[in-house]
Amino acid sequence: MQPTRNVKAPVFNPITGAIRALAMDAVQQANSGHPGAPMGMAEIAEVLWRHHLKHNPANPKWADRDRFVLSNGHGSMLIYALLHLTGYDLPIDELKRFRQLHSKTPGHPEYGYAPGIETTTGPLGQGISNAVGMALAEKVLAAEFNRPGHTVVDHHTWVFLGDGCLMEGISHEVCSLAGTLGLGKLIAFYDDNNISIDGHVEGWFTDDTPKRFEAYGWQVVRDVQGHDPVAIEAAIEQAKAELTRPTLICCKTIIGAGAPNKQDSHDVHGAPLGAAEIDAARAYIGWNHAPFEIPDEVYAAWDARTKGASLEAQWNASFAAYRVAHPELAAEFARRTAGELPAGWDTHVEAVLARLIDKAETIATRKASQNSIEAYAPKLPELLGGSADLAGSNLTLWSGAKGVSKDSGGNYIYYGVREFGMAAIANGLSLHGGLIPYTATFLMFSEYARNALRMAALMRIRQIFVFTHDSIGLGEDGPTHQPVEQTASLRLIPNMDVWRPCDTTESAVAWVCAIERKDGPTTMCFSRQNLPFQVRTSDQVSAIRQGGYVLAEAAGNKAQAVIIATGSEVALAMAAQRTLADEGVAVRVVSMPSTNVFDRQDAGYKASVLPAGLPRIAIEAGSTDGWYKYVGLEGRVIGIDRFGESAPASELFKYFGITADAVVQAVKSVL
Amino acid sequence: MQPTRNVKAPVFNPITGAIRALAMDAVQQANSGHPGAPMGMAEIAEVLWRHHLKHNPANPKWADRDRFVLSNGHGSMLIYALLHLTGYDLPIDELKRFRQLHSKTPGHPEYGYAPGIETTTGPLGQGISNAVGMALAEKVLAAEFNRPGHTVVDHHTWVFLGDGCLMEGISHEVCSLAGTLGLGKLIAFYDDNNISIDGHVEGWFTDDTPKRFEAYGWQVVRDVQGHDPVAIEAAIEQAKAELTRPTLICCKTIIGAGAPNKQDSHDVHGAPLGAAEIDAARAYIGWNHAPFEIPDEVYAAWDARTKGASLEAQWNASFAAYRVAHPELAAEFARRTAGELPAGWDTHVEAVLARLIDKAETIATRKASQNSIEAYAPKLPELLGGSADLAGSNLTLWSGAKGVSKDSGGNYIYYGVREFGMAAIANGLSLHGGLIPYTATFLMFSEYARNALRMAALMRIRQIFVFTHDSIGLGEDGPTHQPVEQTASLRLIPNMDVWRPCDTTESAVAWVCAIERKDGPTTMCFSRQNLPFQVRTSDQVSAIRQGGYVLAEAAGNKAQAVIIATGSEVALAMAAQRTLADEGVAVRVVSMPSTNVFDRQDAGYKASVLPAGLPRIAIEAGSTDGWYKYVGLEGRVIGIDRFGESAPASELFKYFGITADAVVQAVKSVL
Repeated sequence: MQPTRNVKAPVFNPITGAIRALAMDAVQQANSGHPGAPMGMAEIAEVLWRHHLKHNPANPKWADRDRFVLSNGHGSMLIYALLHLTGYDLPIDELKRFRQLHSKTPGHPEYGYAPGIETTTGPLGQGISNAVGMALAEKVLAAEFNRPGHTVVDHHTWVFLGDGCLMEGISHEVCSLAGTLGLGKLIAFYDDNNISIDGHVEGWFTDDTPKRFEAYGWQVVRDVQGHDPVAIEAAIEQAKAELTRPTLICCKTIIGAGAPNKQDSHDVHGAPLGAAEIDAARAYIGWNHAPFEIPDEVYAAWDARTKGASLEAQWNASFAAYRVAHPELAAEFARRTAGELPAGWDTHVEAVLARLIDKAETIATRKASQNSIEAYAPKLPELLGGSADLAGSNLTLWSGAKGVSKDSGGNYIYYGVREFGMAAIANGLSLHGGLIPYTATFLMFSEYARNALRMAALMRIRQIFVFTHDSIGLGEDGPTHQPVEQTASLRLIPNMDVWRPCDTTESAVAWVCAIERKDGPTTMCFSRQNLPFQVRTSDQVSAIRQGGYVLAEAAGNKAQAVIIATGSEVALAMAAQRTLADEGVAVRVVSMPSTNVFDRQDAGYKASVLPAGLPRIAIEAGSTDGWYKYVGLEGRVIGIDRFGESAPASELFKYFGITADAVVQAVKSVL
Repeated sequence: MQPTRNVKAPVFNPITGAIRALAMDAVQQANSGHPGAPMGMAEIAEVLWRHHLKHNPANPKWADRDRFVLSNGHGSMLIYALLHLTGYDLPIDELKRFRQLHSKTPGHPEYGYAPGIETTTGPLGQGISNAVGMALAEKVLAAEFNRPGHTVVDHHTWVFLGDGCLMEGISHEVCSLAGTLGLGKLIAFYDDNNISIDGHVEGWFTDDTPKRFEAYGWQVVRDVQGHDPVAIEAAIEQAKAELTRPTLICCKTIIGAGAPNKQDSHDVHGAPLGAAEIDAARAYIGWNHAPFEIPDEVYAAWDARTKGASLEAQWNASFAAYRVAHPELAAEFARRTAGELPAGWDTHVEAVLARLIDKAETIATRKASQNSIEAYAPKLPELLGGSADLAGSNLTLWSGAKGVSKDSGGNYIYYGVREFGMAAIANGLSLHGGLIPYTATFLMFSEYARNALRMAALMRIRQIFVFTHDSIGLGEDGPTHQPVEQTASLRLIPNMDVWRPCDTTESAVAWVCAIERKDGPTTMCFSRQNLPFQVRTSDQVSAIRQGGYVLAEAAGNKAQAVIIATGSEVALAMAAQRTLADEGVAVRVVSMPSTNVFDRQDAGYKASVLPAGLPRIAIEAGSTDGWYKYVGLEGRVIGIDRFGESAPASELFKYFGITADAVVQAVKSVL
């Protein structure tokens, strides 16, 4: 212990003892894991979960529950212990199988595995970001649905976080925005234990964190003794009393508190304590039970089921009154929290598509995207838009867009220049329920947000990422802003649907697919520059949804080769087809706006689009590597495997050889 | 103008007029670009560049020059104007060709294009991060090379940055660390113009930025009138007087100052002013010259060549005295700043390789990486290591590692949990010269750093990224930490060499290639788990440098198929070869630790490794898509196209079918 830190040690008792014992025993049994955070935050967890958290273990999906996020996700045994002890459907056998294949207790808390896990955490800084999103969702939904005398949306979002989260840049992005937007129901506990993996943090982390958060407009409760329930209780009351500022409660704690010889050192962070230290800890904290044995009276003290049922019943009663007073709002709230699309959606989509096909506009696909938003959003009040300070470039605003501010709700977030924070906040918005977030930046800066996109895919949540200014079509801003490898790279994320539409119709269909997709996120890559409208039969319009389809059959249906293209290169493929036809060479053009979606189709469909034996040429103004999967060693890929250049876009397409003539030559070379 | 901001307008004069005119005229001519920042920062730039910046336009590579970084890189015309006016080899014709193909004046400042551009900026937040790296390099080199009476390393690093940089999370990471490390010679000017692309920032950016930076331990000079040269001068003097804290000078400015109708609005940020507004601006600022015409007296006022030559001559004289007093240090300094490897390097490498081949250890490649560092670092004092709070996991420390602190130099940086900041700081370290940085985190969190890796590749700088805990071998921490698509994704970055070594020998060779590579960065992906040593002839050891090579020829040199493998899967390929041989099937095993390097080999070599006509199977515990480039439509790829699971690693390899038996079956399926 470093005396200068003036941390009071815990007064051990069986209530917190259960957390400490479960954490150290489960980590020991798995021979892997992180006992330090659960043991160090046991008192904070006890006060919050037994006395403040509004939840019902029997219904982890209750719409108005408090949200709890363990941003220091490596401390997963803390939340597994809490869920088990308070009565969630997470039996002790699952805790015994901590970190084993197909258990509900993976190494980090994963959304969809154990009930009560609100989000997947582990990648540091993203949990607090998700929590900002959840608190923002609460604010937006409260503004939309609450009425005088009826507060159907009214819950807190609680976060645990550590030094690691606070060092990560994303914590700056999201906590700054949380302050600006006045998210008063967001309450975070900083586990200030002075330790990170490399040891005592003084050598690399000397921020005055309270001052930093005050600079963001947060309420900060400083110097809370993190093992003193009375101090924790007082801090929570102070936090709950503040309605317009988020609160950071800075808790001085001892990492691994309860392990007499290892506590307060990084040895206790991420490895089992070992049998000897566990024995010593049992004696030290006065816990005389075998591993995974919890006395009935301890279970009884933790059990939140009765109180939770009562809380939810109260809410159900108030919702029933709301339903009487505001039947349409209540029905809408029920639909939205169930994640269902509105009645008449399909008809609406058909009408929208018919109208824009009729218009046959040659426009940039980013503009086509905006037209799609304009067409769909009035039907979908759950769409919550936003951009990372590029609203006018990404074209994410629409006529009904209203910015959320400190003082009001709305349906559009001005995220500021915060790409990673934006994407992780949107994950939280989606996880909260009741909203479908779409966010936007330049395609290049998908890289800043990369791991949050991955987390959306890992959690299989509905999330829509709009990325504009695709490839060298971006032009003069040059290689720092020209995404040549980003589309290919995004396609590698499992469960991420990536679309690169070629015109207004494909853009509108991509938007529909993104909105309708319930089991994962969608990325759409749009052009800065105009792209010509392509004529299609209604069957072809339907086929867009399959990710790849025959856009233009070869003359006489006697294709000698297949050209596969996406986005801005589809027009080049069409031009090449015409030139080749003039020279007596018949080729088929396949538009493949989404390789991921195409890959999911059955073998028969895929073979009908890409018949075996025909030589294939792919063209895309980006990385070529991924296209060999479709064209093989005998095919040709026309693309860009180097960085771009700063120049007007039209010059760049010629300079990089992304031309119809290059396609013509490539076809001839394989015949 | 918003009166509440109390910004004093500039007193226009021809000196700053030249900047404003060049910026607005070049943007107009290009019909693209950002006039707002150059016009808004003209006075700050004038005071700094004419009165403080230590530089010699005739020698942009002078080792002890001040470094200047335009972190708000979209304001590129500001630095092009400054370089041109002060006498760098950047003729007016290049300014006329702003944003045109192959000009020296691309849309964003790009390293290697115009002399005096110290780093490529544009992706927001990374310029200030590079600058932190440059200031850190100065500190480290000063501690190493300066001697009493001889200060051969003694320069400032100056940065311009705007709201965008300050909103980005990376600014938190690097400014926090800069405060902790006491980088007193880092001086940043905050262009506080209250505008970002979406408009006035109040809706999304309300930080108390001075307070935030004080929380990082910076000196903050508040409320400087950014168009008042006297106020700017005083702030700079205050900054220079502070030796142990970095300084942030907060300058209140008017974006686009000088454009009478558009200034102080986002209209002036990123679009040409238009002919009418430019005419009005000429009248407003009193600039009566044609576009790109600068009067001789204005050139004379800016010309820094005489003063620069004198400054460098003084330094040369002091270096000559240093050379007399400390000849070995002086020679070492010269070698290091030239970026040359030490004499005897090749012999040393040979001896190291011979020794470890003799040991034939079966160890984790992360351990092999540490052994490589231990072997090479004593010969290479320019190696400056570090990890993002994972020193003990990444195994980046070695026996001679000494942490850099506020009070001392060293050769190892404890970066804290700051992956993106770390990578961008390391870019600055590399750009500064005199050091070869290597940094480390888990391979998964390469994603957090992604765009800084790309910037290293775009700038073609020597930079070494160590990423450990590759693929599902990571085990129990689960899918949030298991990089299945990251290696494939890193390979897509143009000019990035990615290595995934299979054993101790390949690891050591990868390190050598990374160190010797002068024209780009290298990524190395290492295993958590032990991998068996592979026996090789000396020719095979040499062939590792070609990225892919025949590790085990088929019996009788009569291969019926080729198995390509990398990293942990090479041992599976070798086992499959043995099993198949027992069944009478002869296959060749190709180890391909670096596809990027292999792709650069000549066609003859590539065909010798992968003969045409032989069926091919690739195995890698990650994304399969990229491997079809090598195996074609008729080959097979064994990999993982989904997220991982939390479980012990040995179970996971079986569960995901990454086994020797799977290779055997795949070979049989293609024969």
